[in-house]
Amino acid sequence: MSRVVILMGSKSDEEKVRPCADVLKELGISFTITVSSAHRTPERTREIVREQEEAGAQVFVCAAGMAAHLAGAVAAITVKPVIGIPLSADGLAGMDALFSTVQMPPGYPVAAVALNKAGACNAAWLAAQILALSEPALREKIEAARAAMREEVKKAGEDIQKKYAAGQ
Amino acid sequence: MSRVVILMGSKSDEEKVRPCADVLKELGISFTITVSSAHRTPERTREIVREQEEAGAQVFVCAAGMAAHLAGAVAAITVKPVIGIPLSADGLAGMDALFSTVQMPPGYPVAAVALNKAGACNAAWLAAQILALSEPALREKIEAARAAMREEVKKAGEDIQKKYAAGQ
Amino acid sequence: MSRVVILMGSKSDEEKVRPCADVLKELGISFTITVSSAHRTPERTREIVREQEEAGAQVFVCAAGMAAHLAGAVAAITVKPVIGIPLSADGLAGMDALFSTVQMPPGYPVAAVALNKAGACNAAWLAAQILALSEPALREKIEAARAAMREEVKKAGEDIQKKYAAGQ
Amino acid sequence: MSRVVILMGSKSDEEKVRPCADVLKELGISFTITVSSAHRTPERTREIVREQEEAGAQVFVCAAGMAAHLAGAVAAITVKPVIGIPLSADGLAGMDALFSTVQMPPGYPVAAVALNKAGACNAAWLAAQILALSEPALREKIEAARAAMREEVKKAGEDIQKKYAAGQ
Amino acid sequence: MSRVVILMGSKSDEEKVRPCADVLKELGISFTITVSSAHRTPERTREIVREQEEAGAQVFVCAAGMAAHLAGAVAAITVKPVIGIPLSADGLAGMDALFSTVQMPPGYPVAAVALNKAGACNAAWLAAQILALSEPALREKIEAARAAMREEVKKAGEDIQKKYAAGQ
Amino acid sequence: MSRVVILMGSKSDEEKVRPCADVLKELGISFTITVSSAHRTPERTREIVREQEEAGAQVFVCAAGMAAHLAGAVAAITVKPVIGIPLSADGLAGMDALFSTVQMPPGYPVAAVALNKAGACNAAWLAAQILALSEPALREKIEAARAAMREEVKKAGEDIQKKYAAGQ
Amino acid sequence: MSRVVILMGSKSDEEKVRPCADVLKELGISFTITVSSAHRTPERTREIVREQEEAGAQVFVCAAGMAAHLAGAVAAITVKPVIGIPLSADGLAGMDALFSTVQMPPGYPVAAVALNKAGACNAAWLAAQILALSEPALREKIEAARAAMREEVKKAGEDIQKKYAAGQ
Amino acid sequence: MSRVVILMGSKSDEEKVRPCADVLKELGISFTITVSSAHRTPERTREIVREQEEAGAQVFVCAAGMAAHLAGAVAAITVKPVIGIPLSADGLAGMDALFSTVQMPPGYPVAAVALNKAGACNAAWLAAQILALSEPALREKIEAARAAMREEVKKAGEDIQKKYAAGQ
Repeated sequence: MSRVVILMGSKSDEEKVRPCADVLKELGISFTITVSSAHRTPERTREIVREQEEAGAQVFVCAAGMAAHLAGAVAAITVKPVIGIPLSADGLAGMDALFSTVQMPPGYPVAAVALNKAGACNAAWLAAQILALSEPALREKIEAARAAMREEVKKAGEDIQKKYAAGQ
Repeated sequence: MSRVVILMGSKSDEEKVRPCADVLKELGISFTITVSSAHRTPERTREIVREQEEAGAQVFVCAAGMAAHLAGAVAAITVKPVIGIPLSADGLAGMDALFSTVQMPPGYPVAAVALNKAGACNAAWLAAQILALSEPALREKIEAARAAMREEVKKAGEDIQKKYAAGQ
Repeated sequence: MSRVVILMGSKSDEEKVRPCADVLKELGISFTITVSSAHRTPERTREIVREQEEAGAQVFVCAAGMAAHLAGAVAAITVKPVIGIPLSADGLAGMDALFSTVQMPPGYPVAAVALNKAGACNAAWLAAQILALSEPALREKIEAARAAMREEVKKAGEDIQKKYAAGQ
Repeated sequence: MSRVVILMGSKSDEEKVRPCADVLKELGISFTITVSSAHRTPERTREIVREQEEAGAQVFVCAAGMAAHLAGAVAAITVKPVIGIPLSADGLAGMDALFSTVQMPPGYPVAAVALNKAGACNAAWLAAQILALSEPALREKIEAARAAMREEVKKAGEDIQKKYAAGQ
Repeated sequence: MSRVVILMGSKSDEEKVRPCADVLKELGISFTITVSSAHRTPERTREIVREQEEAGAQVFVCAAGMAAHLAGAVAAITVKPVIGIPLSADGLAGMDALFSTVQMPPGYPVAAVALNKAGACNAAWLAAQILALSEPALREKIEAARAAMREEVKKAGEDIQKKYAAGQ
Repeated sequence: MSRVVILMGSKSDEEKVRPCADVLKELGISFTITVSSAHRTPERTREIVREQEEAGAQVFVCAAGMAAHLAGAVAAITVKPVIGIPLSADGLAGMDALFSTVQMPPGYPVAAVALNKAGACNAAWLAAQILALSEPALREKIEAARAAMREEVKKAGEDIQKKYAAGQ
Repeated sequence: MSRVVILMGSKSDEEKVRPCADVLKELGISFTITVSSAHRTPERTREIVREQEEAGAQVFVCAAGMAAHLAGAVAAITVKPVIGIPLSADGLAGMDALFSTVQMPPGYPVAAVALNKAGACNAAWLAAQILALSEPALREKIEAARAAMREEVKKAGEDIQKKYAAGQ
Repeated sequence: MSRVVILMGSKSDEEKVRPCADVLKELGISFTITVSSAHRTPERTREIVREQEEAGAQVFVCAAGMAAHLAGAVAAITVKPVIGIPLSADGLAGMDALFSTVQMPPGYPVAAVALNKAGACNAAWLAAQILALSEPALREKIEAARAAMREEVKKAGEDIQKKYAAGQ
């Protein structure tokens, strides 16, 4: 059983989407990741969403570029939370994917996160935060990860501070 | 039997879409116009497309705003030509609807036209030009309409020319 | 006890945010709505978030315009899901608020929804979908609401179809 | 006799336009491809359009960058459907070519497709969908190609799903 | 004989274009103003340009909105300087007209000025500056007009300075 | 003697710039406000800057729209801090003024603030914060004003919270 | 004596500006090219403009990036035609330079051309077209160059047409 | 004691921020540079600001990308002047960081400078200009540096002028 389902619109999106899988793995959240397209395989998309939902999936993550309809198409099928990762493509600086993902009509929200890899990471963190509402242990893992990030920033800050202080 | 099917994503789009119906009526092209949403009524959208296609529809025109997925959703169902009219909404100057309409992935084209009323007109003209490929009489109507437009521009040009010449 | 906390950055945002409260009320989800600013009252913001979280709040919804930092500031404090509603202001067509809301760094996601009123609605729907993961009765309400929306679209579609068929 | 005529504004556009020719060849649609510029060779453009139209061309595809006027110039000459492929250049992220292509005035539509190579592909698919209206065999080829794309997506989806399942 | 020819793409542009005529009249520069469209009346456009050029026109000013091709189309016909006034329309904040006007390919320049009325004024000033190269009297008029503008700014500055000084 | 000099590029900017004067008056900071243009009156601009600087001006605030060069022109003359308020005009959603103000080359900074009235306010606050570096009493006034803003937000927050709690 | 003066804002702009010099040289138009900055060397800029104008310069060409004020600053000094070449820099896709160049206030036009190298070419062509108004021999050179471009396009068109015809 | 504090949101920003440190060193202005994040380490950010302020820091410089909240977060804590350097990231051409930095609400200004390295330089120059208000020696250094820049531009201008004059 997978708690999170990650869909990407094309296999060429894999590299940008991988950080999502990495974070979920790090947090011990079971997931399924696959390719399905809102336009090329709308039926496959519906089937995956329905099968995974029946099998217990709680959150859907959809990554797509250009006229990024995948998250919206999934949001039309399920009332589980749907997170959309916009991917920038050739031209338009990613605005096409971002606007296509976030500007959903009333009643069918997509939770849009940042473009590309940063967004792929955050889709996983957001999914985790949603799942943690009913799972205290997961909440602790997220808080521990945040504490580690804080330490990392602090360490980086001290290193840079020293380096420049020495050179001044 | 309707040769053109016009879908709009919301009944509030009617005013912006009306010029499309007006042009089709002027050209004597039968059409059906209705509301269906890519997100709220994806099944209804599929049914309409399939029924109308079986009933002989040749061209689909889809008007939508924001994350304008309607034309893309229809393009995923049929291999008939699909024309998309992007409608500007509150914010983003219409770029959201335009980018969501035009940036379709390979294999599933949408023929995007201009934003709002100008685009609604042109969706009708484009549908007519497509249908005219196999209907010489329609081609003549289009050419006659263009000739009338030319006359109108010429007349307007002469009027303005005289008015300013007099005042100079 | 409020399950959802709605924060807006300024009291002048109330009109655009109200649809969020309306949808939550319609779904019977308890909520608190108040004004707090990421910049003017950062301590008040932290206190509200902590108090509400201790009191049982599960989802935070933050609406702000311009350099819309409120959702991000709340996301820095809590690991509960944070939903951001970007509000368009004077100039930049709302891109300022949208980009400021959605482009969060890894580890601190904000779930961005559409601009303005459509986004305010969807923040409520998204919050409801998140809460419904552990509350089947809420899920049924959402599905019933979606069914009603479908009927409304169908009815509107039939009305427009008839009106234009008659006039053709 | 060529059923589709592809015009590009400059020989440097060839690489981005080639996918259009590739798809047409794959579908067995005869085409002519050449270079002609709205600004440098407006007369040549008119002559090509008229000659090709007399020779039986049904659809014109025009690819251009910057102030991409080629499709519009062709749309002013013929009532055959004109498809425009916007090409991004140095700066403005392709918005210049997209806006110049799609924002045509009433009566003279251009069917705009996506930017660059994805758009070049889709210009061919759209031309094919238009031609297929009166040619059932072509329609079957398009449907077969879509079926193959579906299989490809399904295959890619299964591969990625297995790969990550193994690593989890 | 007109030294400047003003073309607008549609009679609805008249109000935005009028400041161009006003400035030319103020400077005593003969002009012809008319409507002609790059798309609806390309032949009329070519004829006007050729006739006016033979009759002695020195500068062409073209105002158009959306996919503003008029200036580019004129620049393709004549080697006289062509000035383009981009007009904002419904959506895209005028970027469509600006990009379509300014992004001309090598060899066929359009001199783009600001959007809308400010640009209409400046098209006239730019035409005057070009004509003044061989007409010292016109140059003096421009310099006198600039001196008057300076006085106006100075006067406005002193008025506001006093008003606020009094209230402080 | 004025400690702050406010320049606006045109008298029509007065309404948008007034909040800057209001805040300075509220804080008891002496100022001069006048109109001068980077393009129409470059010499007047230079003279004002030099005279005011000699008379003791410490901070320059420049408000302009379109190709907003005024702040940059002043920054080229003086080494006093220059604050730029971008004003949105007809088209381009204010991006023209913002980009023209903020994108200064190395060595000649302009401190850009928000568009329009919000920016006019903040130009005054920023000027005050700069002057307060050497004037503890002014710093206290700023802190008192911030405390008042905090109270206002808190009060607004409590009012809205009660209003909606009552209606729930 | 130089008929055209090319100013660039920074020596790092040389590569992008060179095509302007190349075209002028090809047309036999004398020119001076140098570096001067609107912000770093406003006095040098004024001196160059005045000296060159006295020495007989007829057209000024200014290339700059970011908050591209150079053309505007020159336009404030002289009533000779000023052509602006916007150069894209790090970020904002060149919109900063384009908007800063073209959006000039009434009375002080800059003739904006395309971004970067295409614009550099066209600045030269536009300058030549302006100078050709009073120099028939130059006009013939421009027409000859255009004829050569036409031949080049025609040749490229025929080559590509053959290549693809062979492969079909 | 450091007079200027430079904060960057992530250690990966170091390369783009370095020019800020370089200019401060060149001017002999003491500074501290470190990493702190508005979202990952909001408490560390508050502590650094308070400690450094108590220790005598006069100006804060904050560099961040994407939803660049760091400068705004610091501006909420201190009434010292805060300068924001927007950094462009993957997508959106830096508009995300620029809009997030500059569009601050009334009362809490951030002084935004240009994107990336040019902005990093200018943050240092702006900080220096602010500090120079009460330190005549620093003012002289800035003026000397400007004089050197002027010489450099003049030299570059003469070199290029000669090079092209020779080749003409």
